[in-house]
Amino acid sequence: DIALLTAAQFESGTLTGKTVFITAGPTREALDPVRYISNHSSGKMGYALAQAAAEAGAKVKLISGPVTLPPPARIETITVESAQEMLEASLQGLAHCDIFIAAAAVADYRPTAVSEHKIKKGSEEIMELHLVKNPDIVATVASMENKPFTVGFAAETRDVLKYAKDKLTRKNLDMIIANDVSRNDIGFNSDENAVTVVTHSGAETLPQTSKRKLATQLIDHIANQYTPLAR
Amino acid sequence: DIALLTAAQFESGTLTGKTVFITAGPTREALDPVRYISNHSSGKMGYALAQAAAEAGAKVKLISGPVTLPPPARIETITVESAQEMLEASLQGLAHCDIFIAAAAVADYRPTAVSEHKIKKGSEEIMELHLVKNPDIVATVASMENKPFTVGFAAETRDVLKYAKDKLTRKNLDMIIANDVSRNDIGFNSDENAVTVVTHSGAETLPQTSKRKLATQLIDHIANQYTPLAR
Repeated sequence: DIALLTAAQFESGTLTGKTVFITAGPTREALDPVRYISNHSSGKMGYALAQAAAEAGAKVKLISGPVTLPPPARIETITVESAQEMLEASLQGLAHCDIFIAAAAVADYRPTAVSEHKIKKGSEEIMELHLVKNPDIVATVASMENKPFTVGFAAETRDVLKYAKDKLTRKNLDMIIANDVSRNDIGFNSDENAVTVVTHSGAETLPQTSKRKLATQLIDHIANQYTPLAR
Repeated sequence: DIALLTAAQFESGTLTGKTVFITAGPTREALDPVRYISNHSSGKMGYALAQAAAEAGAKVKLISGPVTLPPPARIETITVESAQEMLEASLQGLAHCDIFIAAAAVADYRPTAVSEHKIKKGSEEIMELHLVKNPDIVATVASMENKPFTVGFAAETRDVLKYAKDKLTRKNLDMIIANDVSRNDIGFNSDENAVTVVTHSGAETLPQTSKRKLATQLIDHIANQYTPLAR
């Protein structure tokens, strides 16, 4: 009986009964009605993780910045623009979240003031743009009293492992997925990736493969690390 | 005979034998390997103009910033990222260009220095970003001695006509296509647009329609204005 088989399969999923929040894509920080600061994140890794978590039986909420990917089938997807909007969507219902995966490339800074009208180009040859630090979404989540198992990403162009370990401790995370975005063949906008999974007990490098396959491996890692905590 | 009919049709095209350069989409100005400043231009208007110009018999070179549109069939398309790259591609072969249509939303400023490595988030709550003015592509083209018939766009959120007329004179353009990007139903990212065509002899408003249909009307306007100049 197919219905029973399917049900059984989901019963035995490594994340069955768990609620997973995943942020994905870039954020856009408006300068005025037409201009913004953003970054090259395609959202592919976060979307692949959402798919893999759902396949592992989890109830997934995908919180996505502006990307060109179609919203994944049968996954609750909330679209946001700015870091502030992404934080709000992340905190909404967080008490029910078991695992929080911060795959989005959140803009560190946003313009101090957003101009209501398009800023006219003046005659000035140079311009100073005043920026203010954005909320740190993953650190905010990890600072909560009953925090979910919190997974961060570290996209770096050098000293990848060093920065990842530092971030793990400093932000009170449970796991960091570190990758080297200085390589053109993997990472941002690429369909492939190679990462190092860093936890408080050590680091393991997963070889280069499709983001789809890597996502399944990462969800396995997360499920393995999550279970022993007996929350 | 279909081949002859097709040839005849092209012979009678309003832009047959003319070379048209069209810039489209946004530009991206890198802050570091992952971050950039950009804007909400989708490239739809520029791509529609390229299609309409080709249908009117012109040889078209489309110079496109990063967009998600597929490159149009049978049109030479050059993809660029920054304003500096777009300027270079615009000047290349400009001596053979009869009509230059600047539909791209070029970033007015770019970061003074591009960091080779990803800028680390410091502990600072605020940050100053130093920007320098980008080359003005349409003004550079219009300043050439044997300049092509040069068409600019004015995307404004207020006083649309006033700014458009000012831009026409100041930049030595032959035509400005002005639109109000403060409206959500038209303009950037929308499939529809409504514009006012401004020349040295007056202004005419074209009512809201699809960018596809509007492009055909605009190419007609451009061809009408271009011919009497007897270059």
